[in-house]
Amino acid sequence: MSDINAIAKQFTDFYYSTFDTNRAGLQPLYRDTSMLTWEGTPIQGTSSILEKITTLPFATVQHKVTTLDAQPSSGSVASLLVSITGLLVVDGSENPLQFSQIFQLYPENGSYYIFNDIFRLNYG
Amino acid sequence: MSDINAIAKQFTDFYYSTFDTNRAGLQPLYRDTSMLTWEGTPIQGTSSILEKITTLPFATVQHKVTTLDAQPSSGSVASLLVSITGLLVVDGSENPLQFSQIFQLYPENGSYYIFNDIFRLNYG
Repeated sequence: MSDINAIAKQFTDFYYSTFDTNRAGLQPLYRDTSMLTWEGTPIQGTSSILEKITTLPFATVQHKVTTLDAQPSSGSVASLLVSITGLLVVDGSENPLQFSQIFQLYPENGSYYIFNDIFRLNYG
Repeated sequence: MSDINAIAKQFTDFYYSTFDTNRAGLQPLYRDTSMLTWEGTPIQGTSSILEKITTLPFATVQHKVTTLDAQPSSGSVASLLVSITGLLVVDGSENPLQFSQIFQLYPENGSYYIFNDIFRLNYG
């Protein structure tokens, strides 16, 4: 499981640092088969997902990861499931929002792409 | 996606109603390849998972689902990813805890079993 956890950590660090500085830079992580469910809205394919991500209504955002869990997600390919909970600081607000996000990553040419992506804010 | 959502809803209703009334009744949902990560602790296989679930330190528990999302998790088999956020009422407490849980369900003989299960409490 140590490899899985290291890959999940590396992916999560890259994903959120890119999201928080240059959202359009996430494009290479998605494919036309990729699915995003954003706050209950299903979106499919690289261009639709990128359009959603890059037009979210905030100027600045910062993801702070609280928990990170990973598991192999298949008995036959080296895919993995990554589950994150954390805090989202939007436009420098002093009241961060809790979020949870899960990814399923599929291996491709020595790297990974996002097949599944589900994002939710958690209201208390 | 409507079938996926209906299956996810049916599974979630069954899982939490069983968890909240008869935890040992969850045994048929797991296999020896199943993985549970419970608050960061990885556990594998039906008997270890059931031992964990049935010895959790509370007398009564009630899951209240706030959000439920589902996606197909494979291009080749009819597996699905189910993501839940909600509230956990432990021993009748007036202060429910927020939780998030994800499952990957694999098809088998016209039904589904749990391959992946990741549970986290979300502290504010």
